[in-house]
Formats: sequence, structure tokens, C-alpha cells
Amino acid sequence: MSMKRIVRVSLEHPTSAVCVAGVETLVDIYGSVPEGTEMFEVYGTPGVDVYISPSVERGRERADARRWHVDTGLEIIVVMNSPSNDLNDSHVQISYHSSHEPLPLAYAVLYLTCVDIALDCDLNCEGRQNRSFVDKRQWVWGPSGYGAILLVNCDKDDANCYDQDNCDQHVHCLQGEGEPRVTALPPRRDSRLWQVRSFPTPKAGLPAGRLSLACILGRPEDSCEAYRHVLGQNKVSYEVPRFHGDEERFFVEGLSFPDASFTGLVSFHVTLLDDSNEDFSESPIFTDTVVFRVAPWIMTPSTLPPLEVYVVGNNTCFVDAVAELARKAGCKLTICPQNENRNDRWIQDEMELGYVEAPHKTFPVVFDSPRNGELQDFPYKRILGPDFGYVTREPQDSSVSGLDSFGNLEVSPPYPLGRILIGGNLPGSSGRRVTQVVRDFLHAQRVQPPVELFVDWLAVGHVDEFLSFVPAPDGKGFRMLLASPGACFKLFQEKQKWGHGRALLFKGVVGDKQINTVSINQVLSNANLISYNKFVQSCIDWNREVLKRELGLTEQDIIDIPQLFKIERRKAVAFFPDLVNMLVLGKHLGIPKPFGPIINGRCCLEEKVRSLLEPLGLHCTFIDDFTPYHMLHGEVHCGTNVRRQPFSFKWWNMVP
Amino acid sequence: MSMKRIVRVSLEHPTSAVCVAGVETLVDIYGSVPEGTEMFEVYGTPGVDVYISPSVERGRERADARRWHVDTGLEIIVVMNSPSNDLNDSHVQISYHSSHEPLPLAYAVLYLTCVDIALDCDLNCEGRQNRSFVDKRQWVWGPSGYGAILLVNCDKDDANCYDQDNCDQHVHCLQGEGEPRVTALPPRRDSRLWQVRSFPTPKAGLPAGRLSLACILGRPEDSCEAYRHVLGQNKVSYEVPRFHGDEERFFVEGLSFPDASFTGLVSFHVTLLDDSNEDFSESPIFTDTVVFRVAPWIMTPSTLPPLEVYVVGNNTCFVDAVAELARKAGCKLTICPQNENRNDRWIQDEMELGYVEAPHKTFPVVFDSPRNGELQDFPYKRILGPDFGYVTREPQDSSVSGLDSFGNLEVSPPYPLGRILIGGNLPGSSGRRVTQVVRDFLHAQRVQPPVELFVDWLAVGHVDEFLSFVPAPDGKGFRMLLASPGACFKLFQEKQKWGHGRALLFKGVVGDKQINTVSINQVLSNANLISYNKFVQSCIDWNREVLKRELGLTEQDIIDIPQLFKIERRKAVAFFPDLVNMLVLGKHLGIPKPFGPIINGRCCLEEKVRSLLEPLGLHCTFIDDFTPYHMLHGEVHCGTNVRRQPFSFKWWNMVP
Repeated sequence: MSMKRIVRVSLEHPTSAVCVAGVETLVDIYGSVPEGTEMFEVYGTPGVDVYISPSVERGRERADARRWHVDTGLEIIVVMNSPSNDLNDSHVQISYHSSHEPLPLAYAVLYLTCVDIALDCDLNCEGRQNRSFVDKRQWVWGPSGYGAILLVNCDKDDANCYDQDNCDQHVHCLQGEGEPRVTALPPRRDSRLWQVRSFPTPKAGLPAGRLSLACILGRPEDSCEAYRHVLGQNKVSYEVPRFHGDEERFFVEGLSFPDASFTGLVSFHVTLLDDSNEDFSESPIFTDTVVFRVAPWIMTPSTLPPLEVYVVGNNTCFVDAVAELARKAGCKLTICPQNENRNDRWIQDEMELGYVEAPHKTFPVVFDSPRNGELQDFPYKRILGPDFGYVTREPQDSSVSGLDSFGNLEVSPPYPLGRILIGGNLPGSSGRRVTQVVRDFLHAQRVQPPVELFVDWLAVGHVDEFLSFVPAPDGKGFRMLLASPGACFKLFQEKQKWGHGRALLFKGVVGDKQINTVSINQVLSNANLISYNKFVQSCIDWNREVLKRELGLTEQDIIDIPQLFKIERRKAVAFFPDLVNMLVLGKHLGIPKPFGPIINGRCCLEEKVRSLLEPLGLHCTFIDDFTPYHMLHGEVHCGTNVRRQPFSFKWWNMVP
Repeated sequence: MSMKRIVRVSLEHPTSAVCVAGVETLVDIYGSVPEGTEMFEVYGTPGVDVYISPSVERGRERADARRWHVDTGLEIIVVMNSPSNDLNDSHVQISYHSSHEPLPLAYAVLYLTCVDIALDCDLNCEGRQNRSFVDKRQWVWGPSGYGAILLVNCDKDDANCYDQDNCDQHVHCLQGEGEPRVTALPPRRDSRLWQVRSFPTPKAGLPAGRLSLACILGRPEDSCEAYRHVLGQNKVSYEVPRFHGDEERFFVEGLSFPDASFTGLVSFHVTLLDDSNEDFSESPIFTDTVVFRVAPWIMTPSTLPPLEVYVVGNNTCFVDAVAELARKAGCKLTICPQNENRNDRWIQDEMELGYVEAPHKTFPVVFDSPRNGELQDFPYKRILGPDFGYVTREPQDSSVSGLDSFGNLEVSPPYPLGRILIGGNLPGSSGRRVTQVVRDFLHAQRVQPPVELFVDWLAVGHVDEFLSFVPAPDGKGFRMLLASPGACFKLFQEKQKWGHGRALLFKGVVGDKQINTVSINQVLSNANLISYNKFVQSCIDWNREVLKRELGLTEQDIIDIPQLFKIERRKAVAFFPDLVNMLVLGKHLGIPKPFGPIINGRCCLEEKVRSLLEPLGLHCTFIDDFTPYHMLHGEVHCGTNVRRQPFSFKWWNMVP
């Protein structure tokens, strides 16, 4: 929806005007109508379409169809559809008539030069209604919405560069530098008349002077090397050189993700100015604007199909078990070797794997946590690469707590893209929270609005210590698993009633350190343990109700997984390996081996978990993580990480 | 919509729980059902309502109606509606039955203590659907929306204070400190069990640590002095002291307007914590949240009824003329005396008068421009006061241009609250723009989204140099007036044709400086003037099309007012007093006296303007501003300012 321009004609001299191909020009004749005029006629040379719009109610008609009564309500509209070859090579003539005179009273002539300028880009994303006529200056969410999308060019196409592609001004490859969002600027042969300028304006909310868009310019037939970096970083506007007769094409890349001070919307303008009169200031002929939304970073819940599993390669048994599970699930395994992990085993905590998506391209993006253990360099040095992007947020005041490890950053399954789950404290409490810059970043993505859960009662303080999601063939397509002291006591009480009170936990644990076994009877007579687990249950129940409300879940969507916690310095840690802290690879679950009481030759905790999950078609593999992970307050989930398939649902089809 | 809480009962010991009046508690009995149980019964002591929710499909029933089959799908819901007098003074008893035994197999008892905590505030603004059940955590725009509203307490109730009320921690008057948005916290007599904490959390977008809400606390019967400032500025949370048996009431005030880094939404929480066990961390019992939206600053278009006219009192004739017009329009006149204005006559440029509105209160707010001429202190020292607020935005880098004077800040008439009009340059041009902090502030108010017009071709560069709005009895209820060189040439050509070519402009101008008269013939033979005014016309036409598109106007909504401009250092200034730069007081217009050509004893420009405006029922008064204003590149509008009635339309009923 480009803006019309008004041109006023006079009887004394011919008027000259520039028009833009496809854009309507209003011709105002009422400033100089000869005395006695009753009617007028209008015609244009070939290539010039002239219409009359008789009134607001009636549609337009072709002007050459007939004579028109002079009436200020009539609008004369001129359109040309292809660029001129020479200056003033087309024209429109208006003749003024009286019923008393056979010949016209006077003529007015308007010479026209047509140029072709347009900001073309894909406004109709897949899955949305295809519309030929939308306002490029708007960005509208939802299936009936529209608007252009930019990807943050946060991958690294050139292995020899140190920086990501959005941090430099190199042109690595056209495919990489955003989508070919074409700005066609096909001009005329002889043109000393005007300038074209294009520049992106930040919308309100973006800090002054900071651009979130960069741009390279070239001609369609050029190779990658011939394109030049013309906008971005400190280059806030660009004056297109005098035309040389060819189409110019802009490729546009996003530079930064939506954040607290950036809504994600960026305007991009092209303006045609007349600077032919040296005495006056420039005057505008045409401007076109397109608004881009920078695609959000999207997380993938554990219910999405896995593509690649990451594990730290320091414990052969554990790595072998994970490798076997990955093989069964049919996904790639990537082992981070010891010289790179430097004995930091918490690969779940170091990073979160998500993706960005536009109609023309989708690629995974790793969000590097501000945690910065010994695995610190792994995401940047090993994961970032061609078509694998990178983003991070670190607080300036280094106010990072254990809650900023990304075991404390999960996402629920759909409606429609799930909700981000982070752990924090209670409103008003002075306890730990995820650092502000990470919360701001997560909120600003908008398509998976975060839910803050209560985890400050936990020593480590991660949401993956008490919840997980698994796929299910029925209901909402998934179940939420919650750690449940209540379910564990109930199970143990039943076993005690059936005479298995002496069955022992922790039997068979292999490790350097001696682990004392504990009987069911001992557990059920430990008043402190019982009292503390009632407190833990009340904390998990608090989160249960938050999750039911925020995710729209009912009790039927939740499975209680038996689990006990113990107290360490007023905070909770898992008493036996934390069953919900599992690796979910499609239907294959890698569950921490609980070393529960052996009854009739089988671990009653494993048996209970199987009885709860196998009816959903899930396969349970219990992995011994006792010494390498559990003893250090983590489990299988903490020691692994997974890249998953993106959602089939397109984010632009939701209304956040 | 407060969150349910789960309480688990056991057979071994009675359970104690705290519940909040009116909030449902789920009682989970399935953790310990005696063997052989087929049915159960539940009853509560008086004041305890117990319901059973048999399934998702069926509604709830009163529990005491009958026995219930044990079925994990059943939910037991307990509600108390008034606070307890003593700890554990109510209870619920569950009895477990088998068909084989006449007596119950076992009992479970749940002791209850009810407290009354609620964040009450007006969520249903005037004009919106009244809803008894809305989610206080949401803020929804539009006539079917809901949500609480905060006013920025930016007036100054105490004349002895230097600061505005939102900058200090004094309690000036309860009516002033926001609305009595009651947080009732009526507690029990004996309570050593819990704490209440309340604190506002900034939503994403607010800089960390900066609060946009302050709060004072007291009891309803207390006088103003007994209230204490408990939240705001550096006080981010507040722990309510142990209950003393009375209701506590929070009054909440807004501290800052929406801006680039603040969406205007603020969350306010109250949390009840159980800290009765010293060994464990605190556990949550109840939390309630309300989201406030800070009311935006709203501008009033010239079509709204005037209440008060401001003028600088240095030129008696001009002041007398304005006073007479104000008298006719029935509005107050305030004269800024010379010792306060120090010869700065541009009171339009120094400030813009708008208002803020909530259902409980509306008051005017002056927006002080960053211009800072000699009138600089006037808004803060003379306008700010009880129920008259103040806001300003100044760039840190003092990058203020002439465009930051508020003659360059206007607002159009409705749909529904009009749109803010500011002048700037063309996209991509390096010319002048309104300073970023002012643009950010205006955009962030959201209800009058700004339109940026092209004014950089003007020497002064204010939108009021070429446009104005007047009320009209038909059409959209108003007309837009645009300065028109084309209309002026047409008028002069007609007059020339009728033999008045020698009629003189500028005849009768009184002043120290000699003004040369100019004839119509001289004007129409001045090729430079004609050529320059064609350029001016193209610039105004550009804005005409922007305004038609952005405000949804047609040609029928626009009146062309004859006007010529001349060139001074490549920029435009009015050739004769600028007719559209008028003071609009209802139907009374104070128009700069143009000193146009006198024909048959009457100024033909005045006559033309009358013929265009009087049919709309408007009364034209031409005020001589030639020497005191026009000669200095301003006119009547620049020398006056008006406080107007707020819109009758409530801003929360729109969807921005």
C-alpha cells in the first residue's frame, strides 16, 4: 500500500513529474481551470493508464471513455506500470471544454517519467492466508496475519572467522546473509534527477543508534564477492549511487534477537528524493517501507523427536548406556572429549538447544548459559558453525547463581509452542532467581511465554529435579511427570504391609565410596525424613497447581513418580537417584537407576515406574548414574543434552 | 482466579492447614486409603463448605449429600468464606467405609485455620463489561477487556515540597496517592504461623531494580499521617508485621509513565508463607497477583472544548484580543507575566497540556518540552500543583533542535483518541527530527500512535505552520485545514482577472519597522516566488497524503486555506501571517490577521477564509500578530496554549 502522490497541473506551462511504477499519482486540475469550462477530457500516451474516480461510492472508470463534468469531487488517477526509457517520454493531456465552443478552451500537459522502485519481500508466510494486498508497514500475528520475517544471522558460515556472521561486515554467502529479500531498484538510463536512500529505522524500544538489521547490496547476477555491506552497526543510512541501469538487490540480515529493549520489529525504508533544485531543500517523490519481525529463538520440549544427543565422554559405562539409547532412538551421538570438557560433566547446564525459523530457512541455535563452568567454550567453539547459530546473555554484574544453569530452563509441550519453564523463588522472597538478562531475553521471544516455578527449596534449584515430559499416544499427546514423595511413601507402605519391610535401598551401588543401605522399615520410621518430605511435597504441589493453571492441565495429564528427598543445609537433594531427571528420546527413556528395594528379585521403584510409563508405549532403560552424577547432585538429564526437530507448527501462526 | 492449594491427609495423624477465605483447597485422600475401603464420607464443621467434583464433565456436588465411591477421579474441594477466630477452630473429617462393615474402617481429620487475604481493586473500568470473575494477572484492552489502572502520581499536593508526589516518600493525602486500591489483609487474633510479603515485580522491559509503583500502608480508619511508605524506589519488597487483628490497606501510586523500556504493566504480589519450621526453608500457602497498567499521558486535539487559555503578557493589544476570544468561548484566561516569561513569547512551544485518566480520577498533566527557553520554569513552577501533574523528557546529550518545541507536537481529532502529529524529516534524510527521548515517550503511550510528518523544509519546522483542526457539525465532526499556496494563487488570479491586480498586501501594518506593500500583480509576476511555492505545495501535498492515509481522511475532510511562503536560507517561512496557525476555542477562531489585498474595502484573504469556515458555524476573529509574532516567524497559535476537556471516550476501551 504505497502512498499516492499529488501533481498539480497548470494551463500556462507543461508540468513534469516522476512517477513510480505501479503507484498511483493524483492529478489535480482544479488549481487552474479556464473560465467557462463545463467538461474536460483526459488521455494518456501508451503505457499511461488514466482513471477517474467519480465519487466515494462508485468505483473508478477509465478516463478516456468519455467527457467529464468539472466537479471537485472527481479524482484523476494516473498509473504507469513499466519504467520509462527516457526523461518525460510519456504524457497526459487534459482538454477543457464548454458546450458553446466546438474546440477546447485550453490544454494542460503533464509529462511523466516512470521509475521502478519497490521493496519486495515475502509477506505471506507458509500457512497463512495468501494476500496480494497487505500493508507492508504492519506486522500481524496469526493465521490471517502477514508480515516479513528476518533471521538473526547468528551462525558462522566461514570457519576461518572468529565471529558470528551477525558481528562482522563480511559477505560470506548470499544464502547465509538472511533471505534474498529483494529490494529491486531498477532505474532509468539517463537520470540526474534524483537520489535513492534507504535506511532502517529502529522502532520505539530499540536503543538510539543501535541497529538490528544489516544489509548488503548487489546485482542479481553478481557473485557473492561483488556484494557490499552497506547498512548495519554504525552505518545507519545509505545513499544509492546514481543509477547505472541495472537492478540492485538488498539482502537483509537480523543482527540481534528481541530483548527487553527491542520488540523485534524493524522498519526498512527506501526513499526517492528530488534534489534537482539547488536553491530548495530536497523534496520527496516516493517512499516505501517494510516492517520486519526478527524471528524469535524457540525451545524444543522433550516430547519432540530427537536428532542429536550430546554427552561428556568421561565415564565409559555412562557414555555407553547413552550411546545405546541414542542408537535405539535412531539419533546421532556427539561426545565432548575430556580435553574439551575439562571434567565438567554438566552439559545440560551449559547450554540449551533451540532454533530459529523463517519461511525460507530454519536452523538450530544454541543458547549458551551464563553459567560458565569448564565447558564454557564448548557451545561457541564446537556447536556454532555453518547453519548452527549461537546466542548468549551474561549479566554485567556477574550475578550468576546455580539457577542460571540450563537444567533450570525447560519448555513444556504444545499449546501451541509450549511455555518456557524456569525455576525461581516465591513472589516477595529474597531467594535465588534466574538472572534478569536471561529472563528478559526469554520473555522477549514472546512465543513461549515463561512460567516461573518455585525451586528455591532445592539445593541445586533446577526444574528438571522434579518434572519431565514424555510423549503419550492419547490425551493431549504427552504426560507431565512429577517427583512425588507421597507416591513413594504409599509404595513403600504397601511393600511393608506385604512383608517386604526389610528390603534394602542402595544395594549393589558400585563406587569408590561406601554407600550405606537403608531398609523400607528404616525409611518409614524416620520421622525427620517423613516430615521433610511432606514439606517437599507441599513445594511440588505448589508447582503442580501453577503448572495445571498455566499449561491448562488436569490431574489426568500428570503422572506421580515415586521419589524421596533429603535435607542438606536447609535445602532438598534427591535421596535416591532422581527418576524424573531422565533423558527422553522419543519412546526411549534413559532413567536414572534408583537402586530401590529389591523385592522378588526386582527393584520395586523400577517396577512401579515401568507400570506407569510402559502402558503409554514407552521403553524404560535404567542407567546407572549413581557415582558419576547422582553423588554430585545430578542425574542422567543433567549429563546429557539433545537437539530436537523443530515444531511443525509455525510460530507466526500463533497470536501471543 | 486464585490458585488452588493441595492438602494431603493421612490416617495416622490429624493434618493442619491454613486456607484463605474464598479460595479453594484440594484435599487429597488417595495417599492413604485403608485397605478394603469402597466408599467414603466427608463432612465439615459449620463454615466449611465441602464439595465433590465427580468428573471433568459433571459439575460439583455438596459432599455431605451422600457416600462416594473411592475413585481417583474424584476431587474433594474445601472452601471457607470467613476468617477463623482461633487456630484450627474448624475441621473436615473423612470416614472410610466398606460394605462388609457397619462402622467406618478409619477416619482422617484435617484441621483448618482460615485467613482473609485479598488484593482487591477495580478491574472493571467504566464502559466495560462488568465481570465478577476475571484473571487479575491479565490486562486486556477494549470494551470487553479488564484490568486495574494506576495513575502516575505526578502532581504536587503539598505546596511546600519541591518535588512531585511520585519523587518523594511522603504521604500527602490519601486521595492523592493513587486510588484507594485496597489490599485487605484482615487476619486472625492469634497468629504466629505466617508472614505476608508483598512486592511489585517489574514486567519484562523495565530496567532491573527500577520500580514503577510505590505503595503506602495503613488501616482504613487511620488518618493520612498514620500511613507509611512501604514500597517504591529502593524498597522492592515489604514484610507485613505479625498480624494485629485489623485490616491493612495499601494505596498504590504509579511512579513513571510508559516509555521505551517500560511497557506500563506492573505486577503486584502478596504472598503468605509458612515459616513455622526453622529447619526447612519457607513454604508457600497462598499468593495473589494483580497487574496494573499505568495510565498513558493523553493529548487533547483543538476540536475539544477549551477550559483555560494561556498567553504571555507582554503585548497588550495581543493579550486583549486573546482575552476577548477566551471570554466569548467561556474559558479561563491565564497570563504569564513578564517577570516570569522574561520576554519568551512562545508559550505553545514550551509545553503541551494533556491529561491522565483512571476510573476513580482524572487530572491534567503538562508535558514540559526539552526546548528550555526563558519560559523554562513556567510549567514546573506555575502549572504543576495539586491535581495538575507534570512530566518531561530531556535528552542526555542535549541534542535538542527547533523541532523539539511543542508547536511541533499536535494531535488529530478522534478515531478514537486521534493520533499524535510530530514533524520530522524524510526517511533516510539527515535533516532534523524530534529528539529520540520525546519520540520514545510519545510512542510508548500507545493510545495515540504518532504520525511523523515532513517539516524539515520549513525554517522553524513545526506542524502547526501548515495544519490545524476545527470542529464541524457534519462529516467526521471536524475539518483539517491545510495551508495552500495553490489556493492562494488561484484566489489572486481570480482577483487579478476582475481588475484588482493593484490591490496591496501588508497595507496598514503597524510597527516599528517599515513593511513594504506588495500588489497582487507583483506576486503573480514573481517567478521565484511562484516556483518556490510550487515546491512548498509539493511538500504540503506529501503530508496531505500521509494524513489522509494515517487518519483515514478523504478530500471532503480537508479545507485548503490560501497561504504563501517565501524562502529564507533554503527553508520556508510564511510570506504573510500564517492563517492556519490559529487559536481554536470551540467555535471561536483566533486567526492571524493576514493583511491581504483590500478589495472593495475588505481583505480578500479574510473574506475567503470566512467563506470557507463560517458555513461550519465557526466565528472568525482576525488578530493582529504581525509585529509581536509574525515578524519573528510565529503566529497566534505559537503565542498561546490551551488546556482542554478530556475526551469522553475512555482510553481503556480502545485496542491499540
